[in-house]
Amino acid sequence: MVIDAGITESDEASNAGLVSLDWGTTSLRAYLVDDSGRTLDQRSSSTLGVMAVTAGVLPGSATTSRFEDALEQICGDWLRAHPDLPIVACGMVGSDQGWVNVDYLPVPLSMVEAKLSLGVAATRFGPVHIVPGLMDVATIPDVMRGEETQILGAILAADGNGRNAASGATRLVALPGTHTKWARMSGTEIVAFTTFLTGELFALLTEHSILGRPAQRSDETDWAAFDTGVRLANQHHRKGLSGLLFSARSLMLTGRLSASGIHDYLSGLLIGSEVQGVQSWWEACDQPILLCGNPPLCQRYARALRTVNRASACIDPGVVTPRALHHIATGADLLPHNCTVKANHHG
Amino acid sequence: MVIDAGITESDEASNAGLVSLDWGTTSLRAYLVDDSGRTLDQRSSSTLGVMAVTAGVLPGSATTSRFEDALEQICGDWLRAHPDLPIVACGMVGSDQGWVNVDYLPVPLSMVEAKLSLGVAATRFGPVHIVPGLMDVATIPDVMRGEETQILGAILAADGNGRNAASGATRLVALPGTHTKWARMSGTEIVAFTTFLTGELFALLTEHSILGRPAQRSDETDWAAFDTGVRLANQHHRKGLSGLLFSARSLMLTGRLSASGIHDYLSGLLIGSEVQGVQSWWEACDQPILLCGNPPLCQRYARALRTVNRASACIDPGVVTPRALHHIATGADLLPHNCTVKANHHG
Repeated sequence: MVIDAGITESDEASNAGLVSLDWGTTSLRAYLVDDSGRTLDQRSSSTLGVMAVTAGVLPGSATTSRFEDALEQICGDWLRAHPDLPIVACGMVGSDQGWVNVDYLPVPLSMVEAKLSLGVAATRFGPVHIVPGLMDVATIPDVMRGEETQILGAILAADGNGRNAASGATRLVALPGTHTKWARMSGTEIVAFTTFLTGELFALLTEHSILGRPAQRSDETDWAAFDTGVRLANQHHRKGLSGLLFSARSLMLTGRLSASGIHDYLSGLLIGSEVQGVQSWWEACDQPILLCGNPPLCQRYARALRTVNRASACIDPGVVTPRALHHIATGADLLPHNCTVKANHHG
Repeated sequence: MVIDAGITESDEASNAGLVSLDWGTTSLRAYLVDDSGRTLDQRSSSTLGVMAVTAGVLPGSATTSRFEDALEQICGDWLRAHPDLPIVACGMVGSDQGWVNVDYLPVPLSMVEAKLSLGVAATRFGPVHIVPGLMDVATIPDVMRGEETQILGAILAADGNGRNAASGATRLVALPGTHTKWARMSGTEIVAFTTFLTGELFALLTEHSILGRPAQRSDETDWAAFDTGVRLANQHHRKGLSGLLFSARSLMLTGRLSASGIHDYLSGLLIGSEVQGVQSWWEACDQPILLCGNPPLCQRYARALRTVNRASACIDPGVVTPRALHHIATGADLLPHNCTVKANHHG
């Protein structure tokens, strides 16, 4: 196991108020935060995601000891040093393939205003409180787990952590990744959301398709190739992604695309198609679009959005997620109302 | 090697006039045809495709002996029994990854009217004449190799093998497959064409993506799931394929799609998106669309086309391809003008 340890501000660890977990399919991130939601310490592991933790477990079998062991590995020291701290988690850990299956909550919902009822997994460290995912029961339904917490974090950050009154204006939050989520907000309320398979398609096409075969990896981003992909996706959106992809081959055969540009060209086609796919949303939104995800990927989205004259702001999920989990834990009355009184949260 | 031998009409083999090869990336089909283009015998192999034949060959190395060996394996008996027969081939065998790289011909082009200049590969069996592929140098360029011959075959079949005068009407030929091609015709002329990655995307999504993981294989086609996919693709085309695919998961989570219906639902989404992608073409065409490909797949396309009120006719490429190769060979003066005089075609 590789754990990337964050900067420990040990002098302040005595103010620890909450252990927050962002526990997804492929990774686990743990944050030790103080009573006000500020991060004191953080860890992340790409070998303790839900998929790895539950690997080989038969359906219906108990998984608690495996999740407990993962908790011990990533932050056993915090839990022993602060045995009374509440623990809160978001992500696929709360799914049918995770630890405890927590029912989805329907949208519209304000993650800022709601006092969420959290799922509970009993452990030897006390209860782990699990944030429910969201469901949009539209013609084409959609679901998320974990992203609702990032959206809350993005909104809290954009609104100055509550210092600015939230207006009812339409705004958009996009979470670029394997399955990119777009949320349409009215003020702090998530009104609707939708998922694009962009990141997974990029991986499939570059790793397994005929298009990726001649591609040469390059450390430099070929922005010209990326921009060409975005431009063609903008101009020919009606033709659809499946009708545009083969151009990665035909442009190369006609000498208009180099082998080292194929990956960035495909990235441009995919992100450009996605931006076109949410046109009706950004056309009705005059606020900068909030992009919350890994910064190099957000940079690509920002660039594609500029081609349709849309401004955006990039937000680091590693900063805003622990703050959002603290907000949720506070709303669920898991945190003491002042620092001198601490409830015992052991189950 | 597995070779599927066709029905041999041995009494008529003495009338043999041409050996025709449809030599693609993954398969090789050989046809022994008579002087009038009728198939006397046929074979196919899925282990003698261009990719398998050239496997492990270093770039720039000679491949002739490997292609000769493949020829020997699939139809050495024909070539020895009829040493003077001309040999004609279409497909990826004529590409930079094949045997002889034959330059693409530009569209517009009438495969019916043109007397094509063929590439030549010299072999111990005499020259193999290779049909050039086509290139459409549009904003988004496109290429084909082998499909130009199938299109010719479909057009010859639709026009009663030349008995009906071809009008200048707009018509469409679609070749469903891994990389589905659509050709827009004016009479017998290919005016433009475009490629959809539909078949390859279906394979990638069902074999490698998170969407395919919970799917249960079924021998029965779930037409209701297929139709739902087509309908959603029709209604939400603007959202784009990458924005529709995740619904294979969310519809299952909401109980509206069964695990055994996932593959057919994805098939419906993909084929429906493709049909939407060529809307401007079929809107301008009042002839039935000619579908040339494997019959169960063509049935899916026909069904999707009916949802947009478009009629179609299914054509078997195994029947029309040898006839098209005979037409090309005749145009290139490879065949004697009557049966009693046979030129020696050895190089």
